[in-house]
Amino acid sequence: MTGMQPSHDEHLQAAMNAHHIPRRLQQRILELSVFHTYAAPGIIIGAFMVDYALELLGTDPGQKLYGVCETPKCLPDALQVIARCTIGNNRLRIVPIGKFAITVNASSEKETAEAVRVFVDLTKIKQYPVLDLWYSNSPDYDKHTMGDRLRDEIFSAGRNILSFEKVRVEVRPKKKWKSVTCPGCGETVPDYLVVDGRCGACGSMKYYQSIS
Amino acid sequence: MTGMQPSHDEHLQAAMNAHHIPRRLQQRILELSVFHTYAAPGIIIGAFMVDYALELLGTDPGQKLYGVCETPKCLPDALQVIARCTIGNNRLRIVPIGKFAITVNASSEKETAEAVRVFVDLTKIKQYPVLDLWYSNSPDYDKHTMGDRLRDEIFSAGRNILSFEKVRVEVRPKKKWKSVTCPGCGETVPDYLVVDGRCGACGSMKYYQSIS
Repeated sequence: MTGMQPSHDEHLQAAMNAHHIPRRLQQRILELSVFHTYAAPGIIIGAFMVDYALELLGTDPGQKLYGVCETPKCLPDALQVIARCTIGNNRLRIVPIGKFAITVNASSEKETAEAVRVFVDLTKIKQYPVLDLWYSNSPDYDKHTMGDRLRDEIFSAGRNILSFEKVRVEVRPKKKWKSVTCPGCGETVPDYLVVDGRCGACGSMKYYQSIS
Repeated sequence: MTGMQPSHDEHLQAAMNAHHIPRRLQQRILELSVFHTYAAPGIIIGAFMVDYALELLGTDPGQKLYGVCETPKCLPDALQVIARCTIGNNRLRIVPIGKFAITVNASSEKETAEAVRVFVDLTKIKQYPVLDLWYSNSPDYDKHTMGDRLRDEIFSAGRNILSFEKVRVEVRPKKKWKSVTCPGCGETVPDYLVVDGRCGACGSMKYYQSIS
């Protein structure tokens, strides 16, 4: 039901075949590399993580899921493409703790939901020397000479570098809002985004300068 | 070069055909509705916005682009799927001002870049009564009885509800970081995410409770 067209990354494809990655997961990794624009190590690890989380949750295809990602780097794209928790559909939350970890839950009518948290386990990653160097951002990691070995170790490891725990997360209700007019620019914004009587762009959030 | 498989939303397809939406843009809207899991009004407007921004910038297919989105609702997914500015590849920034507006620029070696800002123009939207009700979150908008008309107005309007301006934005350099060990949990996180000597999860950012 998901399905982006595969990228034509024959090198990636060959590596996945060599490591006997299941066909279904290969397809997800190819879709993900198209979306992300390249097959970054982080999205490949992310694909294994999301795939594992969905299996642990026992989800059905097309089921509405909510995800939290503990880093903004690479990993959110795996949740977006594989679990369809996207920034724009409001089912993805990024909490910048800085860990390579995700939490996924099904929708719930209650105030909390049972979820599964899947994370890169620092004790397990030690078995994979290049992956360990890359993950810890060591100056000894050289992407020009070690990139292929890194990818090999990631595919060789698969879920072997992951652990999980069952957790409980809060369900966030959809925010009600009214449209209000900013006295600064005369444009409308949701009331809950008004700061000191003005919209963010008339306050401290203006990130651009008009030219021409 | 991008390409997710189209969804099988025949209703959406028929509406696009009826309004003579160009084939290339139809394809993008179908991809987007698969990614977002449904053809929300906001992603259809977003598709017109990103398509317009790319044309104004004169970008080549596959060119590396950076985007800012002034709302987290729906619109970021159009930047992600069409312009390949994703949360995970670090080319998408969300500034929650609350306006339906995006800014897109090509990569630049300088400290700033010229960009184009495309926005829903509140003076132009007034010509489309249902769209105007929906956009302003009016209690008079009823999605059960007005959903089809809203979609028709969006396709009928296309770029007619949009305006643009040329702007200058700051180029954000890639952050250098070192891996440090949190004394609370013993796990590693990037140094710049440490708060009061601990990682976020050992501080105020823990968003889950362990169970089992």
